[in-house]
Amino acid sequence: MPSEFELIRRYFTHRARHAVLGVGDDAALVNVRRGCELVVSTDMLLAGRHFLRDADPAQLGHKALAVNLSDLAAMGAFPRWATLALALPRADTRWLAAFSRGFMTLARRFDVDLIGGDTTRGPLNICVQIMGEVPRGTALLRSGARAGDDIWVSGVLGDAALALAALKRRIRLRPAELARCAAKLHRPQPRIALGLALRGVAHSAIDISDGLLADLEHILERSAVAAEIELVALPASSILRRYLDRVAACSALLAGGDDYELCFTASRQARERIARIGQRARIALTRIGRIHAPARGTPRLVVRAADGTALRPVRGGYDHFL
Amino acid sequence: MPSEFELIRRYFTHRARHAVLGVGDDAALVNVRRGCELVVSTDMLLAGRHFLRDADPAQLGHKALAVNLSDLAAMGAFPRWATLALALPRADTRWLAAFSRGFMTLARRFDVDLIGGDTTRGPLNICVQIMGEVPRGTALLRSGARAGDDIWVSGVLGDAALALAALKRRIRLRPAELARCAAKLHRPQPRIALGLALRGVAHSAIDISDGLLADLEHILERSAVAAEIELVALPASSILRRYLDRVAACSALLAGGDDYELCFTASRQARERIARIGQRARIALTRIGRIHAPARGTPRLVVRAADGTALRPVRGGYDHFL
Repeated sequence: MPSEFELIRRYFTHRARHAVLGVGDDAALVNVRRGCELVVSTDMLLAGRHFLRDADPAQLGHKALAVNLSDLAAMGAFPRWATLALALPRADTRWLAAFSRGFMTLARRFDVDLIGGDTTRGPLNICVQIMGEVPRGTALLRSGARAGDDIWVSGVLGDAALALAALKRRIRLRPAELARCAAKLHRPQPRIALGLALRGVAHSAIDISDGLLADLEHILERSAVAAEIELVALPASSILRRYLDRVAACSALLAGGDDYELCFTASRQARERIARIGQRARIALTRIGRIHAPARGTPRLVVRAADGTALRPVRGGYDHFL
Repeated sequence: MPSEFELIRRYFTHRARHAVLGVGDDAALVNVRRGCELVVSTDMLLAGRHFLRDADPAQLGHKALAVNLSDLAAMGAFPRWATLALALPRADTRWLAAFSRGFMTLARRFDVDLIGGDTTRGPLNICVQIMGEVPRGTALLRSGARAGDDIWVSGVLGDAALALAALKRRIRLRPAELARCAAKLHRPQPRIALGLALRGVAHSAIDISDGLLADLEHILERSAVAAEIELVALPASSILRRYLDRVAACSALLAGGDDYELCFTASRQARERIARIGQRARIALTRIGRIHAPARGTPRLVVRAADGTALRPVRGGYDHFL
């Protein structure tokens, strides 16, 4: 294996644009802008758990950074810096070249400096930490939802999980359908511009990484509120709609994860403003339900089918009764 | 396995003292002090590579944070915040309780907030990112060594590597000797106070994690200088001295790694000041050699034995010819 230092030099040394000192010392040095808070998040991705063992390394490089950027999007933050710790079974230079290409291409697109890292030999493990900036006091939090808020999501949900279900042979898609859904799974697009535009408008926000229901639950818990959403209102691709009579597709939509869209809440009065934000960011923004005050003895989160009945979770997903 | 959220809550939610927002949202929010640069470093530790598979989890929690703190010490930075990403084969709550105790005890000692993290199921992997602050322009760098500088190291070198050699049965130590050296291996003490005191005094610094020679080489490379050090000047414990006729011990001293002491350079004029810094920090500081201008055709780093001859590296370590 080439030494750690050689690997770092070859694939991960790029001129830092927003750093006093980048890769190459015991630590990196950066300046956080005056009046800004530093926003910090970390995600660890493992082969066989967060991606398939034969995953394309360039897509993996993209995704490892994208899922971290998505956390900053949910905070309404400007991405600035990242560190990357990488455990590799062997120094496969072809793999590393492709991985770093995927990672660095996305980093450049969002003007993110890779300022530090670590490489070691071991079972494939990718740990990224992302850092960004947000003007003091303006970050979008999970804890700000209020009774009466609309609940919104960006884009469409469930395609990534539908692709994964197909790759795991739980559902059959046509080749062209699988290709389109797999692109969502492998190359999620962090909603940075949307997150920035929602500051001062949304009351709360989260990115949908574990599935709409699980992530919306985090907003409800942190905000001490309850919610109802309507199944028919959920934005789904024409592909996913075609399979909605299958439990796997319905579960992908509600609980699939890997969407990396934003779920946020805002007052009724903000509807027009939000519509304009969606137009400007060129992304569909869909109202899917409403926040209300919690009531004892009723579930915190209810999903209603078209006929008004509440969905019940079934083993392995959600059955929508339609 | 208890859910990720349960694990985080149970073991890693502590009141953040220096954070606007700690664990529990998509990202953490912190304020970097005015006039300070943010200092960032990351280290990934793997079972079987950086620690033995049956390592004590409390010691591991200590060490995972300590090696990261050591990077901040080498920069002369105040530690402030950390994130922790953890892959675990299974949710062993006893293991987690001990690990978090080791980690958080050291965190509290250095007033570090754990502000974020990630837990996932997989081969044991510990990835810590550490963040600190340093007044703008005062960080200790690898790149500042100048011809004529003294080379210094803190503490004693090689005990940790000697313990590892004994645990791997490459050398036999008496039980009491092994116990003392193993404590250095398992519970390194980051030299934060020393690093802070050396700002404005040392011209360059690095922490000794890969062994004195390898780490001093980084200073020489980044500073474009050369160096000579004297074997007899190297600070070693009475235990290590007893085994100095063995290649394993001599190699541990020169190239063992896991010392987490500081190696730094400073002008001759700073000798008295450095002596006082050592007294105040209650740590031995030892001059081990001298920086000089690089000369074509001569090695960048020469280690001299007592008789003036240069050491030559041998397979598996260094032979000191004595």
